[in-house]
Amino acid sequence: MLQVWLLVDLDSDTSVPVFQVCEWHSPEQLKKLLDLELRDRGEPESEILQRCRDAIRYSVKTSHPRFFNQLYAGMEPYSMVASFIAEAVKTNLYTYEVAPVFTLMEDAVLRKMIKVIGWEEGGDGIFNPGGSLSNIYAVNLARYRYCPDFKEVGMFSAPRLVILTSQEVSCHYSISKGAALMGIGTKNVYTVPTDERCTGAVPFMVNATAGTTVLGAFDPIDEIADICEKHNLWLHVDACWGGAAIMSKKHKHLLKGIHRVDSVAWNPHKMLMASLQCSAFLVRDKTSLLQRCHSARASYLFQQDKFYDVSYDTGDKSVQCSRKPDAFKFWLMWKALGSRELEQRVDRALAMARYLAEEIKKREGFRLVLEPEFANVCFWYLPPSLRNLPESPELWKKLHTVAPVVKQRMMKTGSMMTGYQPLGEKANFFRMVVISPQVSRQDLDFVLDEIHNLGKDL
Amino acid sequence: MLQVWLLVDLDSDTSVPVFQVCEWHSPEQLKKLLDLELRDRGEPESEILQRCRDAIRYSVKTSHPRFFNQLYAGMEPYSMVASFIAEAVKTNLYTYEVAPVFTLMEDAVLRKMIKVIGWEEGGDGIFNPGGSLSNIYAVNLARYRYCPDFKEVGMFSAPRLVILTSQEVSCHYSISKGAALMGIGTKNVYTVPTDERCTGAVPFMVNATAGTTVLGAFDPIDEIADICEKHNLWLHVDACWGGAAIMSKKHKHLLKGIHRVDSVAWNPHKMLMASLQCSAFLVRDKTSLLQRCHSARASYLFQQDKFYDVSYDTGDKSVQCSRKPDAFKFWLMWKALGSRELEQRVDRALAMARYLAEEIKKREGFRLVLEPEFANVCFWYLPPSLRNLPESPELWKKLHTVAPVVKQRMMKTGSMMTGYQPLGEKANFFRMVVISPQVSRQDLDFVLDEIHNLGKDL
Repeated sequence: MLQVWLLVDLDSDTSVPVFQVCEWHSPEQLKKLLDLELRDRGEPESEILQRCRDAIRYSVKTSHPRFFNQLYAGMEPYSMVASFIAEAVKTNLYTYEVAPVFTLMEDAVLRKMIKVIGWEEGGDGIFNPGGSLSNIYAVNLARYRYCPDFKEVGMFSAPRLVILTSQEVSCHYSISKGAALMGIGTKNVYTVPTDERCTGAVPFMVNATAGTTVLGAFDPIDEIADICEKHNLWLHVDACWGGAAIMSKKHKHLLKGIHRVDSVAWNPHKMLMASLQCSAFLVRDKTSLLQRCHSARASYLFQQDKFYDVSYDTGDKSVQCSRKPDAFKFWLMWKALGSRELEQRVDRALAMARYLAEEIKKREGFRLVLEPEFANVCFWYLPPSLRNLPESPELWKKLHTVAPVVKQRMMKTGSMMTGYQPLGEKANFFRMVVISPQVSRQDLDFVLDEIHNLGKDL
Repeated sequence: MLQVWLLVDLDSDTSVPVFQVCEWHSPEQLKKLLDLELRDRGEPESEILQRCRDAIRYSVKTSHPRFFNQLYAGMEPYSMVASFIAEAVKTNLYTYEVAPVFTLMEDAVLRKMIKVIGWEEGGDGIFNPGGSLSNIYAVNLARYRYCPDFKEVGMFSAPRLVILTSQEVSCHYSISKGAALMGIGTKNVYTVPTDERCTGAVPFMVNATAGTTVLGAFDPIDEIADICEKHNLWLHVDACWGGAAIMSKKHKHLLKGIHRVDSVAWNPHKMLMASLQCSAFLVRDKTSLLQRCHSARASYLFQQDKFYDVSYDTGDKSVQCSRKPDAFKFWLMWKALGSRELEQRVDRALAMARYLAEEIKKREGFRLVLEPEFANVCFWYLPPSLRNLPESPELWKKLHTVAPVVKQRMMKTGSMMTGYQPLGEKANFFRMVVISPQVSRQDLDFVLDEIHNLGKDL
């Protein structure tokens, strides 16, 4: 008999981390530790339990208060409970008959998000496995609205269509991936202001970003909406990361004008900490555009002679067939916390990011890349050996090599994890992202101390 | 303090179901029972626990031995434990640094599946959120191999490309959905033998199906491979459902020739009962086609100046950014059961399907739609009032209305769940699918008895 007990204890003191964030092993070392081979004979349960312990031990502790490596972090216990239940209930969201509870919960969450966005006449939406797919849906809907025939005949006789995005350097790469997948082509993703190449091509949508991945920058939605309304262009906002700001009276100005856009991608698994994955795609249209664009009317799922209202069978709004009940993970935590607690978490995370930015300004050897607009704090660390060099290509070339070495050392000590990257012409810099309420000021002080400790000899 | 205890007991006697498969409520009734509204204030933990109980209570019990409604069923405890761990570990598979264990496990599972398929020189692959996306990947890779330029320039100056599929009626609808999404168009998905419309168009891939959704039919892969090799066409096999047969010495002949194809979609979450979702896309190419076709080289994830071998960063093989560690759910159960137990499960499920088919032949009022080739058993139930009518359009018209009413009644009693659908010209028929080892012969006898009880007055 295999009994599995999982205990989630909310009261444990997380301010003093006991475990490392990670226990680094190279792929070759880790392969030896894990014995990955799958054999003809199975293993006894005692060994399988050891496999489970090893899988946990050698995985990165993304819920650790010193994990800042991605746009998710920390542990939201209500959402995790929901994810366990969803796993155990084991169903897909194609029809009401196999997923009655989750179908209604998805509908309730989407309606609430639409209300928060400010689409007063309502809208439509769906949860997707990740924000990239939501952005791809936006491109598909915009194209379908521009010319529904493409669904049937393809784009072989279409004029060259282009997607306009602001700031090539910070628009999420999923727009390019989507353009490639959808037969539009990566070269037809243009930055604004549009350059000469656009001659002869037809823009059909604009992608704006609310909270870019690296810098956390927000495009001016209201101004872009003016232009899109004038030229009848579909306006999509990739708010996967920055959408959470709308929960906060203090910070919702970052998304000013979002009530005017055609579609929004918003991932509650990022700033709001829902379990992975939890990604909403929201569309203002009320004429079943989402359904018409994606439907294939499979006769074995979407029978029209059912005994209940088949408008509750939402599966044909998706390009997926199997689709997980991700909305439940957000519904349960929202129910438990209320909008107010979500607001407070956003406010607290942004206040902590502000604290970190001010600390960086105070400390010798640290330099902000720019004033943070959101929860992203981007900065360089200059070891003492570089502090007295004049501003020159030479300095930046040397500085570019610092972050990778510090990152390597932090992975090997396992004391913390944060990301680094170059951006356009900018040399490698660190990106800190504050999300979880389990992160304290001490943790942020530690981050700066630790980066100095790890890099001061460089 | 919120403590959550989850107990999975493998020894419980499932041969006598205590619970109903479902407790039916219309959407309107269920909305009232659930109180779905999300408010400013959160709820106390006692109420949240009640919400969890309600979510479970009103959900369909897909692990019940009398749930036959979809191509997944039953509960695989090892896989479910893995899914709980994956939820708790909470990470994404873009890079080795944030998902070292799951990256290596995905690699190990893919290699093993490739070996089982028989690609002796190896191959490549990735786990996707559902088989539809795997089929879409196949179309994208085939198109990329045909002309890599489309990735950058789109398809505006391309010749009209067409996808060839066998048996329009049973090829999964994801091929159509994919064609629409990818700018190819649903009308450019042609059935074989190709009709005159093909003039002037360029076929670039063939989609064969191993285990169709409704009938469980298998295309002759070897014969199709002969043609594809001759004409240099990409051959993809949608084996999402039927792929499991390859685990069985007795049944692998159904997939004869699969070692010759270019790509395979195979969902272990179906016949092999891995937790939802667990969908592999496998490709025979060894020249990084998958990576080259999908990559966007995001600088903040896929830095080339990392200190480890970045070929272990597999995220850029995907069109997703966030991607869940679904392979772990298959790895752990395979490790626990071994290939032999997986083989026995497949053999047992197909033997049970055979038993059901023979019972149907023996029983008055039941008629097989066709001899089962796999685990799908499709049949009509004729109530006594229809049994003496002559074969005529009138009879079929009446028979068409039987299955929806029987289905409505079984949902309302909650005694079992099975699917029904029309297919081409065929009137509505039931589709039974045997998957889980928890299903007994008594369960299958019960299914036929119950359909008769529910429909005999029609």
